Amino acid sequence: MSIRRRRDGFDWEAVEVLAYKEEGAAPFKAITRRTLFDRPDMAGELRYFEIAAGGHSTLERHQHAHAVMILTGRGRCLIGGDVHLLGPMDLVDIAPGVWHQFRAAAGETLGFLCLVDRDRDRPSLPTPDERAELCADAVVAAFLGED
Amino acid sequence: MSIRRRRDGFDWEAVEVLAYKEEGAAPFKAITRRTLFDRPDMAGELRYFEIAAGGHSTLERHQHAHAVMILTGRGRCLIGGDVHLLGPMDLVDIAPGVWHQFRAAAGETLGFLCLVDRDRDRPSLPTPDERAELCADAVVAAFLGED
Repeated sequence: MSIRRRRDGFDWEAVEVLAYKEEGAAPFKAITRRTLFDRPDMAGELRYFEIAAGGHSTLERHQHAHAVMILTGRGRCLIGGDVHLLGPMDLVDIAPGVWHQFRAAAGETLGFLCLVDRDRDRPSLPTPDERAELCADAVVAAFLGED
Repeated sequence: MSIRRRRDGFDWEAVEVLAYKEEGAAPFKAITRRTLFDRPDMAGELRYFEIAAGGHSTLERHQHAHAVMILTGRGRCLIGGDVHLLGPMDLVDIAPGVWHQFRAAAGETLGFLCLVDRDRDRPSLPTPDERAELCADAVVAAFLGED
């Protein structure tokens, strides 16, 4: 099938709405995942994530990089020790080994594309010590403490 | 630099507007290219192409696949022997070895993301015989004969 049309908003023909992760595998809130392109003959995979108002992705890190493009809505992301504001079409690079989390703004659905290698390692979650270290910064502590 | 913000429309901080291809290298019309993500630590590369009203990409094929997502505007693409209408957010798979060309609709700027492997072969153009073979189909002949 060469063409998969947008149905409406950010829904597509033949693209399933998936759970973000397995329930209970990691802390997250109000987020879905769609795999847009995952071809055996390409090395990259393109996914669309949607975080409902007040929701967030898992705080995690891994050895693969993320290349993110915001498609809709506003929010913020933590990358390492910095919190950044995000709006439509902004480009976000997440380097290997860096803690990161995305949050939708109040009253906004945050939708974004995320490019990864098909062949990649699994994310790891912070230990209590690592989380405490991140939270030594007051801005990061406030960001992580919102839910 | 973790964040590159959208300046306006489909322009970004620290993202250069590039010529689509080298002038004279291949037939194309009214098209620009921006590399959004090209990280040495990722296997995929994400580009943004913009075709002005009445413009088109090169008719070509190659052994690497394309994964395309329309971001703005309307147009059509030829994939193998078929012409498809395109609109915002539509997803397009172009398999290896298949002739393809994108065209913007009259009065529309067609902007789309194109995911490719960083490591890929160069496109080839049709020989006169291959072009004649494609044009044996009246719909394809009309599509290719528009400029």
